[in-house]
Amino acid sequence: MTRQSLQLELAERPKGAIVPGRTFRQRRVAAPTEADVREGQLLVECLYLSFDPAMRGWLDDRRSYVPPVRVGEVMRAAAVARVLASRSARARPGDVVTALMGIREVAVVDEDKVEPAPPALARAGPAARLTDLLGVFGLTGMTAYFGMLRIGEPRPGDTVVVSAAAGATGSVAAQLAKIAGARVVGTAGSDEKCRWLTEDLGLDVALNYKDPDFKAKFKAATPNFIDVYFDNVGGEQLEMALARANTFARFVMCGGISQYNSENSSGPRNFNSVISQRIKMQGFIVFDYAKEFPAAQDQIGQWLAEGKLKRRETIIKGGVAASEEAFKQLFQGGNIGKLLVEVKKPDEVARL
Amino acid sequence: MTRQSLQLELAERPKGAIVPGRTFRQRRVAAPTEADVREGQLLVECLYLSFDPAMRGWLDDRRSYVPPVRVGEVMRAAAVARVLASRSARARPGDVVTALMGIREVAVVDEDKVEPAPPALARAGPAARLTDLLGVFGLTGMTAYFGMLRIGEPRPGDTVVVSAAAGATGSVAAQLAKIAGARVVGTAGSDEKCRWLTEDLGLDVALNYKDPDFKAKFKAATPNFIDVYFDNVGGEQLEMALARANTFARFVMCGGISQYNSENSSGPRNFNSVISQRIKMQGFIVFDYAKEFPAAQDQIGQWLAEGKLKRRETIIKGGVAASEEAFKQLFQGGNIGKLLVEVKKPDEVARL
Repeated sequence: MTRQSLQLELAERPKGAIVPGRTFRQRRVAAPTEADVREGQLLVECLYLSFDPAMRGWLDDRRSYVPPVRVGEVMRAAAVARVLASRSARARPGDVVTALMGIREVAVVDEDKVEPAPPALARAGPAARLTDLLGVFGLTGMTAYFGMLRIGEPRPGDTVVVSAAAGATGSVAAQLAKIAGARVVGTAGSDEKCRWLTEDLGLDVALNYKDPDFKAKFKAATPNFIDVYFDNVGGEQLEMALARANTFARFVMCGGISQYNSENSSGPRNFNSVISQRIKMQGFIVFDYAKEFPAAQDQIGQWLAEGKLKRRETIIKGGVAASEEAFKQLFQGGNIGKLLVEVKKPDEVARL
Repeated sequence: MTRQSLQLELAERPKGAIVPGRTFRQRRVAAPTEADVREGQLLVECLYLSFDPAMRGWLDDRRSYVPPVRVGEVMRAAAVARVLASRSARARPGDVVTALMGIREVAVVDEDKVEPAPPALARAGPAARLTDLLGVFGLTGMTAYFGMLRIGEPRPGDTVVVSAAAGATGSVAAQLAKIAGARVVGTAGSDEKCRWLTEDLGLDVALNYKDPDFKAKFKAATPNFIDVYFDNVGGEQLEMALARANTFARFVMCGGISQYNSENSSGPRNFNSVISQRIKMQGFIVFDYAKEFPAAQDQIGQWLAEGKLKRRETIIKGGVAASEEAFKQLFQGGNIGKLLVEVKKPDEVARL
């Protein structure tokens, strides 16, 4: 019997939020086989899919750092995958790799879409998990690392505020600021997330942005103003951070999840503070630092092994079919830490 | 007869635009005399008053780089002034200085509010004028210099866009970018200003933002996108610049005159481009570079003497009484180049 592969295709560009059953279409196709692999390509099978806010941006047809996903195309996504067949020096059959393979079970991918597991994963020993390839060693971890350390540049004693601090990127960014000696305030969307931030990750303050007194608490939590603001959400929290910015503050413009699904996005109304407080707001894309990933992964792995860096995952079972549910959770703040969809457990793969 | 001094006092904080006859109050008081000068102070007489968009910000009661002008207080302003009496080593009677003396004819000021004319003025020879102390050698010239060269960092071949390019700061910033070898596009509010920018200052393109086809022309004028945007206006033009920003563009956040008088200011709606295009937006205040002013003034003076840098002034006669008219012109774009109010001609001073 021919093997099947379920895939998620873009059916219609969303104007605002992703609409389950409408934005995407699930389709079962005949899985590609070794016979379909050309020179420089690999046949890979998905184990875990990564779900990240940035994926919303890939659906809009506008100039950006990557071309938009085309209607009818398989939705772009990064995955931890197992190599089934290879005509590339990048990886061998049986290897576990990171692959930009899209939301599907089996795919033939060009070798430039495949990254072997970094040596840092093995070096971190039992402290590391395969899913860390998408988390702390993956794009969200690298985003936190370069955004916080290269643009934010926290110094001992600085006040650092991280929005969406319980997310995959924010939780790493916040801990890196703690490691740098800063006083760290995180914001998140539930009391449970806030408890995780202070009790497990050691943040100084965590604030639930749904709290009716959030604004007053935000102000009270930043008595010496804000030196570094790591922005994952944009919108109102960005305005609050501008209002509390110290002179020469660094604003790491990483994401704007509060605006991604809005048809009428708006910039901060108190934007002129950028001038009066001499703020540097800098956007960045993690790929700009690709050459430095190995060194960053080594450092992250060391902190992971030493217990200085912690992470958490929210894993949704159900495979590719659960992808729409994953998007829903992602934009409703349902996840703590890295959001993944499990497509195939590694031990099932081993039995293949 | 006791000498009188006319002064302009803040009568009421404006919510939006400055309202002539309401925001300020003119009052004639007995002029201070030499007897009022204490150790470390100087008695100065105003020759020219500087009118700059940043002054609007000094009227708002909010955290900024200087405390707001208090209601009842003389409106803060920089002036070219003549020293009438001195109990300070900073300057002697007869010297022409720059003084943060406020909008009034005569004042006793602390020595830290007085700057002697820089050596660059004399070195520039006949190419320089006394009023250049407020212009190219003054805060607007320094703002252009440090904003463009330190934050914008134009490189040969870069596309640089300067908004309000016919203003005191913009016109210098635009020419500095030309000197650096960039292709420079300026925006301004009249065809006359645009002609000055291209025909006299040598900008590559000048666009009238009141032109109904402004957006299309702006796009056409930036075929290789924008590497440096020197922002004096904020608002819609900032949105347009974001839409045309090249990757790794530098946005010099100098001013936001389009927003200063607005009760409901707003940030750019396409603010998320900061992330996707990896833009650095950096605010600054010229005083941050105060220690480096002399070197910058020398360089500016040299370009002035060589004819590489040109400037123009709009001088309103009528003294302190004409200040409200000056504010009106300033925010309606009535000036080309530096806007000044002449309070007393230097040769009248000589006759005193």
